[in-house]
Amino acid sequence: MKGKLEEIKRKIMPDGKAMILAYDQGFEHGPREFLERPECGNFEYILDIAIRGKFTGIVLHAGLAERYADEIANSKVPLILKLNGKSELYTEEDPYSPQLYSVEDAISLGASAVGYTVYSGSKYEDEMHREFSKIIREAHNKGILAIGWMYPRGKSIFDRKSASKTLKVALEEQEQTNLSIDETPSIVAYGARIGLELGADMVKVKYTGSQESFRRVVHSAYPTKVVMSGGPITKTDEEFLSRVKDVLSAGAIGIAVGRNVWQRKDPLIISNKIHRLMFGS
Amino acid sequence: MKGKLEEIKRKIMPDGKAMILAYDQGFEHGPREFLERPECGNFEYILDIAIRGKFTGIVLHAGLAERYADEIANSKVPLILKLNGKSELYTEEDPYSPQLYSVEDAISLGASAVGYTVYSGSKYEDEMHREFSKIIREAHNKGILAIGWMYPRGKSIFDRKSASKTLKVALEEQEQTNLSIDETPSIVAYGARIGLELGADMVKVKYTGSQESFRRVVHSAYPTKVVMSGGPITKTDEEFLSRVKDVLSAGAIGIAVGRNVWQRKDPLIISNKIHRLMFGS
Amino acid sequence: MKGKLEEIKRKIMPDGKAMILAYDQGFEHGPREFLERPECGNFEYILDIAIRGKFTGIVLHAGLAERYADEIANSKVPLILKLNGKSELYTEEDPYSPQLYSVEDAISLGASAVGYTVYSGSKYEDEMHREFSKIIREAHNKGILAIGWMYPRGKSIFDRKSASKTLKVALEEQEQTNLSIDETPSIVAYGARIGLELGADMVKVKYTGSQESFRRVVHSAYPTKVVMSGGPITKTDEEFLSRVKDVLSAGAIGIAVGRNVWQRKDPLIISNKIHRLMFGS
Amino acid sequence: MKGKLEEIKRKIMPDGKAMILAYDQGFEHGPREFLERPECGNFEYILDIAIRGKFTGIVLHAGLAERYADEIANSKVPLILKLNGKSELYTEEDPYSPQLYSVEDAISLGASAVGYTVYSGSKYEDEMHREFSKIIREAHNKGILAIGWMYPRGKSIFDRKSASKTLKVALEEQEQTNLSIDETPSIVAYGARIGLELGADMVKVKYTGSQESFRRVVHSAYPTKVVMSGGPITKTDEEFLSRVKDVLSAGAIGIAVGRNVWQRKDPLIISNKIHRLMFGS
Amino acid sequence: MKGKLEEIKRKIMPDGKAMILAYDQGFEHGPREFLERPECGNFEYILDIAIRGKFTGIVLHAGLAERYADEIANSKVPLILKLNGKSELYTEEDPYSPQLYSVEDAISLGASAVGYTVYSGSKYEDEMHREFSKIIREAHNKGILAIGWMYPRGKSIFDRKSASKTLKVALEEQEQTNLSIDETPSIVAYGARIGLELGADMVKVKYTGSQESFRRVVHSAYPTKVVMSGGPITKTDEEFLSRVKDVLSAGAIGIAVGRNVWQRKDPLIISNKIHRLMFGS
Repeated sequence: MKGKLEEIKRKIMPDGKAMILAYDQGFEHGPREFLERPECGNFEYILDIAIRGKFTGIVLHAGLAERYADEIANSKVPLILKLNGKSELYTEEDPYSPQLYSVEDAISLGASAVGYTVYSGSKYEDEMHREFSKIIREAHNKGILAIGWMYPRGKSIFDRKSASKTLKVALEEQEQTNLSIDETPSIVAYGARIGLELGADMVKVKYTGSQESFRRVVHSAYPTKVVMSGGPITKTDEEFLSRVKDVLSAGAIGIAVGRNVWQRKDPLIISNKIHRLMFGS
Repeated sequence: MKGKLEEIKRKIMPDGKAMILAYDQGFEHGPREFLERPECGNFEYILDIAIRGKFTGIVLHAGLAERYADEIANSKVPLILKLNGKSELYTEEDPYSPQLYSVEDAISLGASAVGYTVYSGSKYEDEMHREFSKIIREAHNKGILAIGWMYPRGKSIFDRKSASKTLKVALEEQEQTNLSIDETPSIVAYGARIGLELGADMVKVKYTGSQESFRRVVHSAYPTKVVMSGGPITKTDEEFLSRVKDVLSAGAIGIAVGRNVWQRKDPLIISNKIHRLMFGS
Repeated sequence: MKGKLEEIKRKIMPDGKAMILAYDQGFEHGPREFLERPECGNFEYILDIAIRGKFTGIVLHAGLAERYADEIANSKVPLILKLNGKSELYTEEDPYSPQLYSVEDAISLGASAVGYTVYSGSKYEDEMHREFSKIIREAHNKGILAIGWMYPRGKSIFDRKSASKTLKVALEEQEQTNLSIDETPSIVAYGARIGLELGADMVKVKYTGSQESFRRVVHSAYPTKVVMSGGPITKTDEEFLSRVKDVLSAGAIGIAVGRNVWQRKDPLIISNKIHRLMFGS
Repeated sequence: MKGKLEEIKRKIMPDGKAMILAYDQGFEHGPREFLERPECGNFEYILDIAIRGKFTGIVLHAGLAERYADEIANSKVPLILKLNGKSELYTEEDPYSPQLYSVEDAISLGASAVGYTVYSGSKYEDEMHREFSKIIREAHNKGILAIGWMYPRGKSIFDRKSASKTLKVALEEQEQTNLSIDETPSIVAYGARIGLELGADMVKVKYTGSQESFRRVVHSAYPTKVVMSGGPITKTDEEFLSRVKDVLSAGAIGIAVGRNVWQRKDPLIISNKIHRLMFGS
Repeated sequence: MKGKLEEIKRKIMPDGKAMILAYDQGFEHGPREFLERPECGNFEYILDIAIRGKFTGIVLHAGLAERYADEIANSKVPLILKLNGKSELYTEEDPYSPQLYSVEDAISLGASAVGYTVYSGSKYEDEMHREFSKIIREAHNKGILAIGWMYPRGKSIFDRKSASKTLKVALEEQEQTNLSIDETPSIVAYGARIGLELGADMVKVKYTGSQESFRRVVHSAYPTKVVMSGGPITKTDEEFLSRVKDVLSAGAIGIAVGRNVWQRKDPLIISNKIHRLMFGS
């Protein structure tokens, strides 16, 4: 298993860096993400970006992974199967994202890694911590990687009543910045730490607004690897690239990005810029 | 398994088209659907329509499928076992339709496909996404098709408070039409997309009021096949046939219809008209 | 299995008629049912009625079925093990009756059939539909009958707010009669239909006040067999017998009766009258 | 199995009488029960009472049963493993006592019987009826006894709104006595009856204030054996002994007592008195 | 198994004393615990303290235990895998800490013992009592120790309404001291007793403010071993050491301490002082 795991690490993190294309938004946000550029709704268009943009991994739900299994295998882009998901149609104060596929499913679909979103701070964090923990153990037993989408969220965090000590620190951090509460260094670092404590190989977290604060996040997760979540499309390429620079300097090993690539007019231009920044060519 | 699956596709979708007779209303709505034409409560009458109307599939719960197993086998009409269901006697804001039979049950009853209703947007979407996802995996492993009844519904959708971005777009769409919110293109397309993401072979969705808007639905689900749900009986045959034309032009592969066939005085007349429209004879 | 099932049908439904003695009231209502005639609390007294009254089945919970296994076997009265139950000590708006014994238990106790109460319309109908559905599949696989106590009930039915279409029809029916809402033809017929859809061999339902309306119930369940639930003791034997006549004329195959037999001074007198009505001797 | 069961019955019920020492109060009520006599907190002291007081069974949780397994085996006092329990720290209207150990655990600890508390009337009676029912089946399959602590309790019982018919009778009984509602004959008898219906070999119930009323309880459970629960310490030995006499005359086969023995200054004095009353020496 | 268990006891409790280093705060409280001394966030720093401070056990979650498996094995410090955990981001009245890893996981990570937090008094005590009880049985079957973090907590305890008898005593104790309610002798002793009743080998509990009151706690748990929980950092070393002296005199076998060691400027100084106090050198 260890040999297989090392080989997978070399593929998803060549030179220790990861540049991952996220494409689970059709489930999480729905087709509204494809309104301006309908071609983005078509996976064939997306896979082409992943290949030509030299991404080191692509994140999918099981439906597309199964239907395009041959094309993905041929592309050599490592598959990261996102094991849980939820629609934005149900709007709740305390989110829960249920596990939809098993590690066994991931392996039979040829995945190199599994992903799972954890909303620590939600009323349902117990379920998600438990599910993710089991997934990590099973993934490691079967020789693939486990990646956590660590997004603390929920009524306890958005409400300011009966705040935890962590939240009190986060609220102070917020006063000096224009971050939303789930982007403050204390909250993001806590999410990352939970990824480490549970045993994730990599955690995907939000940008905390500065290189300095992101360093704290990276430190809290050490030695678990950290990648920045791309988030909604920025006005310019430069705005996005500047964030990438920040987090790399802070010790992150890369990014997991979707909309900031495929919602742009020419996704390959920004893909190339990111690649150059990360891999030097 | 792949060979078996291809054979089933040829039977349920000859020439790539599906004309499915739905008969799960006795459970979902109760015997009130048979008040005007009591013969509709008798399955023997319904099976006769399926045979003589040249339907390419019939949707049943396990009770009828088991009791009339021989008659269904002789009829050559492919059986689609509806795996979940609920009565209208319990009226709730957030619907949940529990899985009642297993894929194993479906196979032992001779089914070519399984059906499952998903109310994305309900407080219980987690349970339904999870159940349907497992059903899809198991159906494919055992060589039969999985069809999703994709009906976003629930308090989050009917309430306008704390609306998701998708719902905001849907509310704008609604202002320009006389659609109910769960018939707007954005909501229907989202439901269809979830079918694709989970891995459904076919999705059954509501009509969105126009060919143009339905095209968006078909696009969002691509390459999953789309059929239109028949819905309550229309005043005239033509009104219904015009919808069928619309969705076929929009790329749908057919319909799943119940009341618009068997609640009519002569169900074979409309059956023949639909068949001609879809298959040219 | 089929041979075993046919043999059981001949025993529980000789000449296609069923006259079943219900004795689960000690659980459902408690010992208050035995206050006037304490001998009714003693199963030995009850079994004697079943034998001498020529009943074609007796309904019990597992405790009595296990303790009197030899006596029941010797009596030749077929055992119907009631698999779920609840006490009246917990008074709730939305009832749930949990499965307490398995089909496996029933078979090891020598049962010819299993019974299960379904409160469709309750907030917990999902659980009950699911449990009963699994019970039916397993019973049939193991060659015994499955009988549904179909009693729609719950807040959605007793409350008149947000009424379903079925409930609206039922409320109209109620205006012209002195039936309680769960005795109206629409509600009773819906319960019976769910029994058919799930696959029950027989359904036990409430009397709907007239032969004509009961015919609708029988039609809705067809080809599932229908028996009338005895209910609380009537003032006279004739009042009860008149109901039995009604439902037999309406197509029911018999009754499942407890209190109207064993709470009477001489239970054999009414037992004989019922037997004569049903079997002609 | 039957041979083993008969041998166990002879040990726990010599001459058909049971005199059981209860020691689960450390869990149910906590160390406050040991405040006046700290030696009662020490199991070694308690086991000595069980041996020298000639008790026919001792009730324990798994912790003590495991740690003192050798001493218990040497003592020849039959072990009754209490399978569920809860602390009084959580105060709720509707109690639930979760199953903590399995029948398998009980057997590997050398138990002759298992005990389980059932709070019928609680919102969670479904869970407890279900758990106890499974325990009974498994205990009998493995040749040990199943004893029910039958204590109807919960909001439906303490609240007088929406009272069941049983509760209405109980409220009338209460008006003529100084019993609390869960000590009225109707409520206690109902609990005992549920024990019979589920299949318990023995039920432990509260004293109903008189020999006459307790006779009704014994009758309702017949042929399940009934023992009286000892309850909190009475002012005098005689007060307690008088209750024991009452229930024995009413047909009970004995008692399960804890505090009324070990909280007394000299537990052997009352133990001897009880033994003489029950066994004549 | 017994041989293995004895060997483990000699390692974790040499001379019958336990000096355990707790490091699960990164999960329970988050990285805020590392704000003043960032090196504390790095496990390599912590393991060094455990080794050089001569601790007899170290408490970890699975993530660190897995990643540093070789280093921990080489260190010879026995591993105690904490099986449950929760973040402080979700602030609730009734805490629940879900089981995240299995006893099987613990053994494959080389653990000598498993730990589990029990919040008796919480609305979810049923779940935690059940999970811990199963863990104890399995741990003993597989030859490792089970340690309970016994922390009664929850709305029933913090609210003074509908108080249990135990809580009433605790409230009286509180009036004469400056203890918080979950530090009063009655509450702490109850928690410890539950550990004994369930079968824990060792319980970790809060300090009750005095040697005399802690003696009651030790007595209530007897013969289960008791260790004091270190708690938040005290102003001086002496303040902490004085508590350690108290509990040792009261019969405790040691402590489980984290922040009072690693949050100090020189963790080895206090480690040596504790070691000398406990082991005399």
